[in-house]
Amino acid sequence: MLQDVTHVENIRFGDGNSVVIIDQTKLPNETVYLTLTTPKEMYDAIYLLQVRGAPAIGIFAAYSLSVLANGIDAPDFDAFFAKFRELGDYLDSSRPTAVNLHRMVTRMYDAALAHRAESLDGVRKALRDEAVAIRDEDIDMCRRISEYGLSQLQDGDGVLTHCNAGPLATSRYGTGQGPFYLAKEKGMNLHVYCDETRPLLQGARLTSYELQKAGVPCTLICDNMASLVMKQGKVQACMVGCDRVALNGDAANKIGTSGVAILAKYYGIPFYVLGPSTTIDFACETGDDIEIEERKPSEIREMFYEKPMALPEVECFNPAFDVTDHELIAGIVTERGICRAPYRESFEAMFPEHFAK
Amino acid sequence: MLQDVTHVENIRFGDGNSVVIIDQTKLPNETVYLTLTTPKEMYDAIYLLQVRGAPAIGIFAAYSLSVLANGIDAPDFDAFFAKFRELGDYLDSSRPTAVNLHRMVTRMYDAALAHRAESLDGVRKALRDEAVAIRDEDIDMCRRISEYGLSQLQDGDGVLTHCNAGPLATSRYGTGQGPFYLAKEKGMNLHVYCDETRPLLQGARLTSYELQKAGVPCTLICDNMASLVMKQGKVQACMVGCDRVALNGDAANKIGTSGVAILAKYYGIPFYVLGPSTTIDFACETGDDIEIEERKPSEIREMFYEKPMALPEVECFNPAFDVTDHELIAGIVTERGICRAPYRESFEAMFPEHFAK
Repeated sequence: MLQDVTHVENIRFGDGNSVVIIDQTKLPNETVYLTLTTPKEMYDAIYLLQVRGAPAIGIFAAYSLSVLANGIDAPDFDAFFAKFRELGDYLDSSRPTAVNLHRMVTRMYDAALAHRAESLDGVRKALRDEAVAIRDEDIDMCRRISEYGLSQLQDGDGVLTHCNAGPLATSRYGTGQGPFYLAKEKGMNLHVYCDETRPLLQGARLTSYELQKAGVPCTLICDNMASLVMKQGKVQACMVGCDRVALNGDAANKIGTSGVAILAKYYGIPFYVLGPSTTIDFACETGDDIEIEERKPSEIREMFYEKPMALPEVECFNPAFDVTDHELIAGIVTERGICRAPYRESFEAMFPEHFAK
Repeated sequence: MLQDVTHVENIRFGDGNSVVIIDQTKLPNETVYLTLTTPKEMYDAIYLLQVRGAPAIGIFAAYSLSVLANGIDAPDFDAFFAKFRELGDYLDSSRPTAVNLHRMVTRMYDAALAHRAESLDGVRKALRDEAVAIRDEDIDMCRRISEYGLSQLQDGDGVLTHCNAGPLATSRYGTGQGPFYLAKEKGMNLHVYCDETRPLLQGARLTSYELQKAGVPCTLICDNMASLVMKQGKVQACMVGCDRVALNGDAANKIGTSGVAILAKYYGIPFYVLGPSTTIDFACETGDDIEIEERKPSEIREMFYEKPMALPEVECFNPAFDVTDHELIAGIVTERGICRAPYRESFEAMFPEHFAK
């Protein structure tokens, strides 16, 4: 049994016929657990983003179908399965674009059909086993990814991450942030720098919450502070999750990820992408074939949260300025003209009165 | 007479003995003009950031002292100057670190002293002339900087800017954003991409407001979207203001500026720093000698504005994802191991079942 440092069990069976989830819409200001028993409550939990993250949604649907199967009263398997399938299709319709949801609902159908020769109680037991297997497989996969990721880190490293691909979105550990929890379990010291991830602030609201609850030292920064943090030598590696990876290795992830990678390259810091092989699109040649979703302007114009966006105990680093290296500057434009590199000579030529003879 | 496209006259003399300013604390949601007549109102205007931006504060103090000089009743110059100086010292104490404020208050003292042989009405006229000269010199300097900056741009260019160094902070035009207003006056077409500039959102609240009011086409983005905007070929140059420039050309400016410069270098886009020569610190060898101010964590944890942060008519670009080029990725960590460049070969070796023989 793995020790769970995350202390965030996002999905579990409740007493009796229920599924218990953490309400992600209330985070980080309130940690509220919901006990769900009806199909409508379960549908709404997905639809209203109370449970979110593609793997987590898949696990939740499997747990929900197992619970709902216990409540189906039917004379035989065919009648049982007709009702079961109706409930599954209903849950499956809650977020049409979530591929994991559909895949896991289908797995539950297959599990039922594979045990059709047994009693209905046998089928119900098989469904519960299948739901638990789906979760255990996800934990195992996240743990493998986390182990591989952690192999690239040293004790004492600072690691910068962007957006959220942690325990709340999966089963345990997560992907992009998985190595940080595994390090904690192993007694290895890391310090995580956590981009807030505008506009929807998943880094502030979710990642820093998860890390804080797990006791992983972390510092929340605004996205535009990553360059300074790297320059100050605080970061030895970057690790992020991914939404889709092309055959040439181009990786789509939350907006801002490519900027982090360019900064890391500039400062000579390795940048890692972590994800299950299901995110590699073997039919997609390069990142140019990946379409970028555009979302509504109000996410930028107005704040998502009027309430605090991170736990009060989350450490923040809030530098007001940074220094741009002269080698990055094409020209310094003054009222007397444009100074060019080498700047000292250029300044001396343009502002001789400031230089002693 | 220059045509003022900015339509934001931040400081002017009102009818009778008053100074009229735009209340910058109410922007962008309300455009409120304040008519100030008493020393306390003028002090508070600076202290409460109703007027902000180092050059703007200097101009405002000069205008205020000119107005207050009209109200000083005194039998002779010495009695007049004693009261004048008391008022000047009072205004000067409103923001102790603002070097322009102190410098312009001192200029007003010198102007009074230079005309001490004249009647008090003559002194008062000289003070008004000096205040107007301070403003005109700032306009002239900003215009020169803007002309030089604009010489680096082509008709039709996209330009990315960060933070605020525009008309509100100066007299007219501004520095970092000055070329954009000058282009508008000259009938040249630019499109400005405006970083929102977390945590205090000067880009969203002030720069996009100024550009929108001036009719300069602009698109507001979150800071972490700059990489994608550059990759999409929307930006041909970056222009920013500066707080302090070292002798070797290293330039301190709002947090996030160095990140923009690194992205620009990666994409082969020229990055310009614009500012008056007063921002060049001829006693500072490199940027390493510049201390970075650290501010309170609540600016990150909580939102500065609960109200809308940009005008509703400001165009936004809100991509949800971006693609990180494979050359930036040190490894793609999957549940089977770490894939390395060249990725196609690495994927094929690790996931052969996805590749046809």
